[in-house]
Amino acid sequence: MLLLDLRKTDGPLYRRVYHALKSMIRDGRLAPAARLPSTRELAADLRVSRNTVMLAYEQLLAEGYVVSRNRATASVASASPVSAMPESSRAKPAAPAPVSAYARRLTGLLGAPPARSTGLRYDFRYGEPSVDEFPRQIWRRLLAARARRTARDAFGYADPAGYEPLRAALAEYLKRARGVVCEADQIVVTSGSQQGFDLAARVLLDPGDVAVVEEPHYPGVTIPFEAAGARLAYTPVDAGGLQTHRLHTRARLAYVTPCHQFPTGVIMPLERRLALLAWAARTDSWVIEDDYVSEFRYEGHPLEALQSLDRDGRVIYVGTFSKTLFPALRIGYLVLPRSLVPSFRAAKWATDRFSAMLAQEALTDFITSGQFERYLRRAGNRNAARRRALIGALQQHFGDRVEIAGENTGVHLVVWLNDVRPRDLPAVIARARAAGVGLYSVAPFHTSPPPRAGLLFGYASMTEAAIRAAIRRVAEIV
Amino acid sequence: MLLLDLRKTDGPLYRRVYHALKSMIRDGRLAPAARLPSTRELAADLRVSRNTVMLAYEQLLAEGYVVSRNRATASVASASPVSAMPESSRAKPAAPAPVSAYARRLTGLLGAPPARSTGLRYDFRYGEPSVDEFPRQIWRRLLAARARRTARDAFGYADPAGYEPLRAALAEYLKRARGVVCEADQIVVTSGSQQGFDLAARVLLDPGDVAVVEEPHYPGVTIPFEAAGARLAYTPVDAGGLQTHRLHTRARLAYVTPCHQFPTGVIMPLERRLALLAWAARTDSWVIEDDYVSEFRYEGHPLEALQSLDRDGRVIYVGTFSKTLFPALRIGYLVLPRSLVPSFRAAKWATDRFSAMLAQEALTDFITSGQFERYLRRAGNRNAARRRALIGALQQHFGDRVEIAGENTGVHLVVWLNDVRPRDLPAVIARARAAGVGLYSVAPFHTSPPPRAGLLFGYASMTEAAIRAAIRRVAEIV
Repeated sequence: MLLLDLRKTDGPLYRRVYHALKSMIRDGRLAPAARLPSTRELAADLRVSRNTVMLAYEQLLAEGYVVSRNRATASVASASPVSAMPESSRAKPAAPAPVSAYARRLTGLLGAPPARSTGLRYDFRYGEPSVDEFPRQIWRRLLAARARRTARDAFGYADPAGYEPLRAALAEYLKRARGVVCEADQIVVTSGSQQGFDLAARVLLDPGDVAVVEEPHYPGVTIPFEAAGARLAYTPVDAGGLQTHRLHTRARLAYVTPCHQFPTGVIMPLERRLALLAWAARTDSWVIEDDYVSEFRYEGHPLEALQSLDRDGRVIYVGTFSKTLFPALRIGYLVLPRSLVPSFRAAKWATDRFSAMLAQEALTDFITSGQFERYLRRAGNRNAARRRALIGALQQHFGDRVEIAGENTGVHLVVWLNDVRPRDLPAVIARARAAGVGLYSVAPFHTSPPPRAGLLFGYASMTEAAIRAAIRRVAEIV
Repeated sequence: MLLLDLRKTDGPLYRRVYHALKSMIRDGRLAPAARLPSTRELAADLRVSRNTVMLAYEQLLAEGYVVSRNRATASVASASPVSAMPESSRAKPAAPAPVSAYARRLTGLLGAPPARSTGLRYDFRYGEPSVDEFPRQIWRRLLAARARRTARDAFGYADPAGYEPLRAALAEYLKRARGVVCEADQIVVTSGSQQGFDLAARVLLDPGDVAVVEEPHYPGVTIPFEAAGARLAYTPVDAGGLQTHRLHTRARLAYVTPCHQFPTGVIMPLERRLALLAWAARTDSWVIEDDYVSEFRYEGHPLEALQSLDRDGRVIYVGTFSKTLFPALRIGYLVLPRSLVPSFRAAKWATDRFSAMLAQEALTDFITSGQFERYLRRAGNRNAARRRALIGALQQHFGDRVEIAGENTGVHLVVWLNDVRPRDLPAVIARARAAGVGLYSVAPFHTSPPPRAGLLFGYASMTEAAIRAAIRRVAEIV
């Protein structure tokens, strides 16, 4: 008679019988090839219906724990999980994992993803969205309306390039607002601009290829490039942006932020833009234009994109809604030269098929209804006021002791501290943090430590009052 | 006096002045270094306010089309877009695009993504979701509730592994329903299972590495593997699934569908499962278990996953909601051995940061409220009835002329046509298509043409009546 403990698991009775038998087979109490009692016998022993035992046996049979020549007799399979597992492998501690060169490079570059800061009263972290002012109610309504009327088709597999009406709306918006010359079929919707950079790394870079990046630079881009095995040619940025006369002559691509260099905030003038495009044409290389936040320019109209000058189909334009709307939306896009469209569509399809549809549909309505640009104007005014508040507070409390860099664009400022030595900056940041203010050094954006102590202030998610209060606190502790 | 045509563009007056000047600079009517009229002069000429002209000049200045030594005089920059562009590059036709080996392999493998079939009355395409029965109203309510109470944090950047409560709900569900042994921190939420396969290809495979795949096989997986540069070792499947005695001895990984082989539908018995795990431990390689549709088993309880037997941390378990819920949701997940968690988290972060949050939040509620499993039971009953209807109709109309393969699981059937020669199958499919019925050959899932004519029927999205009517039509034309 088999002693089965049916109390160890819960669920339907047959599952408990099944689990009890399986655990006996697994730990060897029921040996390989041992004959099981008949379903009738076991049912009588356990005082359950015969049907219950039959279901349990069928399950064990289906999973191969038990073999049966006919319906009447069943026995434990000759290979049981424990006996079949080689001793050596069970005893062995976890071996060093064989992972790819990509994975090894990546973990070397990245370490752990950045932890969220907590417990800060005021946080100047860059990239925090300005959620409180986002028209959440309008967005919710658009989502709900789309969820209600979604067509049958919209649940299935879709075009890897993204929702066609969204691409049409983007093409129209980009032409009007950014001077970008494109049609909807040149656009690939991505899961944030990060996926755009990563797809570009995969489609354009082989291990050993040279990629020009700005110095200082945005590491979100250099990480996928380096992980793809590219060698980075850091090219200095001065008051006119990337120094185009110093461009590497054998690069596969150059990554630039011409409308608001990250992090310095300088704008690349026309002459250099043209030099960059001429370099790309001459050296048969690509230019990736990261137009991450040019919607926010606080004097005059936003600058037109570099892409608008591209006559040779060399510029890959990368846009995102993470800064204008919010990061958790995960929608960005690429505007591609026609020659690259098939490769990027294929890469998107092989990577994750296509981006989720509902948010794309709601975003289409947000753009075509004019809500998006109305929101941009409101957010732009708000950001301008926050920028003024930040500059004003810095000037009031620090005067000549700080130097504010960058043009009147974007959602961040670089501030150089004239009377802090670079090596003392971490202590200043730690003191500010202890006082509840999150400050961030510009050092992570430099390959070698910058000669001066600099801070990068993201201000889009803080009210003017909070900005003033935070700078006052910082002034007290510096 | 400058002749500006302000009617060519619309928008604010200063924009029209700006565009008119820029187009003159661009086409050379205003030559490099030419002096522009003063703002006062031009304003008088155009009968617009001086402020309008100043705004236009500032914009041109900011973009570098114009230079200015002082506020009074401005002239065209010495580098103008057209003159700076080398003649040769402008004249040149689009050069063959320098793209990566990955992109070249991928486009060779993939060609154009599959077109959507249209105009078919009945379509047995595999992978179409059963949308009509999906509890859209419940889903909408969950989405709306989450959109309403979304916390401030949920708009910003998030954990690359995905929404923690979703991972906890998945770990609990997988343990209960699939025997998968894991904790939430071993799960990475992906954009569909495709991203899971692609991340695995990147993290585990170097160019030249051998990857074992089943023959016949699911090409959605082999494409990212081959594009990553892997050499595929096609290993035959028989009535017991992958023939484990024929496993390559120097492979980096094996991709398997043990609970319902795709497309044959066979189930891998315990003995082979253990042999596969022993092979992985012995050869220091990984096993990717694609558990794509095991929730739907129509006799007894679903089989436990291969992962439940893994004692050496060798199995990467891939799950998806594309078959159980719908593909446009774009949510899948990986259950990883602990040793691989850091690499996959880093790869997800570098690839697209994290998957969109709102759908993850709603899905969490769908699972923890029990709605998901209730829906699975309903969908399972429905699929079972559809499967019976399909088998019944095939037997009624074709009798011995067809052979139905595969176990009682999943959302598709493979049917061999005994009296159709393989080379005649395309004509049969074309005739069916002309009669409004979409039929699909199994040939694309084989590396070399299968010796018999076989069809793969997806039935999850068709009613029983439609299935019977479609098979009747097919019978009339075969």
